[in-house]
Amino acid sequence: MKLTIIKIGGNVVDNPTLRENFLNDFAQIPSPKILVHGGGKIATQVAVKLDVETVMVEGRRITDKAMLDVVTMVYGGLVNKTLVAQLQSRGVNTIGLTGADAGVILSKKRPVKEIDYGFVGDIEKVNNAFIDSLLKQNLVPIFAPLTFDKEGNMLNTNADTQAQAIAVAMAKDYEVNLVYCFEKKGVLTDVDDDNSVIPELQKPYYEQLKTDGAIHTGMIPKLDNAFKAISEGVSQVTICHAAEVRLAVNEGTAGTKIV
Amino acid sequence: MKLTIIKIGGNVVDNPTLRENFLNDFAQIPSPKILVHGGGKIATQVAVKLDVETVMVEGRRITDKAMLDVVTMVYGGLVNKTLVAQLQSRGVNTIGLTGADAGVILSKKRPVKEIDYGFVGDIEKVNNAFIDSLLKQNLVPIFAPLTFDKEGNMLNTNADTQAQAIAVAMAKDYEVNLVYCFEKKGVLTDVDDDNSVIPELQKPYYEQLKTDGAIHTGMIPKLDNAFKAISEGVSQVTICHAAEVRLAVNEGTAGTKIV
Repeated sequence: MKLTIIKIGGNVVDNPTLRENFLNDFAQIPSPKILVHGGGKIATQVAVKLDVETVMVEGRRITDKAMLDVVTMVYGGLVNKTLVAQLQSRGVNTIGLTGADAGVILSKKRPVKEIDYGFVGDIEKVNNAFIDSLLKQNLVPIFAPLTFDKEGNMLNTNADTQAQAIAVAMAKDYEVNLVYCFEKKGVLTDVDDDNSVIPELQKPYYEQLKTDGAIHTGMIPKLDNAFKAISEGVSQVTICHAAEVRLAVNEGTAGTKIV
Repeated sequence: MKLTIIKIGGNVVDNPTLRENFLNDFAQIPSPKILVHGGGKIATQVAVKLDVETVMVEGRRITDKAMLDVVTMVYGGLVNKTLVAQLQSRGVNTIGLTGADAGVILSKKRPVKEIDYGFVGDIEKVNNAFIDSLLKQNLVPIFAPLTFDKEGNMLNTNADTQAQAIAVAMAKDYEVNLVYCFEKKGVLTDVDDDNSVIPELQKPYYEQLKTDGAIHTGMIPKLDNAFKAISEGVSQVTICHAAEVRLAVNEGTAGTKIV
């Protein structure tokens, strides 16, 4: 059976018009389906007001205890439940989850090497049987980018990686189509030209683009996740603009297919 | 089959020592079981920092859109997920829910009469079949005091009332023991004397205590919920101190039984 897993990032979460349109599109995508969302700038805004300093190292948020409370509030509460309620009003029976809920995504607090990332989780295990039980009840899970360890901590978790880990776990029982939505129309050969979308990207070409410096650094973790998903049994991975998600999922005519 | 439903209020949520002890006790209570939590002062503290004004009318929070965002963050995110993770570390397989998740508790936005309470929900329907499906998977649901309407809104909801509504809905299939934990040892004949606990409270005596003014106003909605639960099929309702929850549940030797 087919399963569509869609990941949206901060650009969709933060932009009311883009979000409304995305939710309308998402409601039209056939079930079973799963949504994974990122954080967005609102966590940073809330942190500022709560006098919690935002520290980024190499594009990743350092999560001390105070920042963990902020992201637990914003990602697990405000963003997640707002998406749940807004999709419920569109007739989609959603259930919002963090990895701690039903112990569905267990992580390990990232070990301290050169950098202490704080309360950041590296995923160890996804309980695909529990997710499957929700899908079989016609529920649509919505995951916040938070997991947990067995020590009682919530852990801040990269949403791209979380989407990949869920996709790989679900690929045991489903033909999974993983779709990363972001602010570009796909993987571009020229980052300044939105018409330079690569329709299909294979590993050797990806390696060459990296060597040539044609792919900007922010894309590399996303593409690494995409290739990992494909190599571990996910049927299809597409990277596209949020506004083209229906074209990408239903027609396969938008974005970049990872093959 | 027996089902224990325990409601904790802000005094447990806000006090780290009381909360730790309560969670240790809760972990020892036999399953199936459900936890319902209130908000606590942290929502007010966060609201202050976010420049959101707290307006209370007759002990109830007025919930405008900005305050709704705060309680969705704090109750649905920080408080709920922290309890979920902390019970997971105690071996309790918890799942945190708001009423919007899986559409489990549908409410109607309270109609505006003398007072406009804003985004406050009056519960219309509890999906007991979904809760039952979680209990049958050996999961322990933890409810935040938030529900939803079909218009896409989260709604702030009184936790005492929510616990009562869940208990009544589950009473169709279970012998339900509903336990309200709060900061006193039970219903007191003298609010200043913690040894004046009434072991069993019947409706006529309650009416008399109200007439005499012996029961302070904050207790009345809680007791009205307790009597409503009993009249609608809940087997047992107990009101006790959070520190005595195991005695109340396992031995039946603490707090006030509503009969």
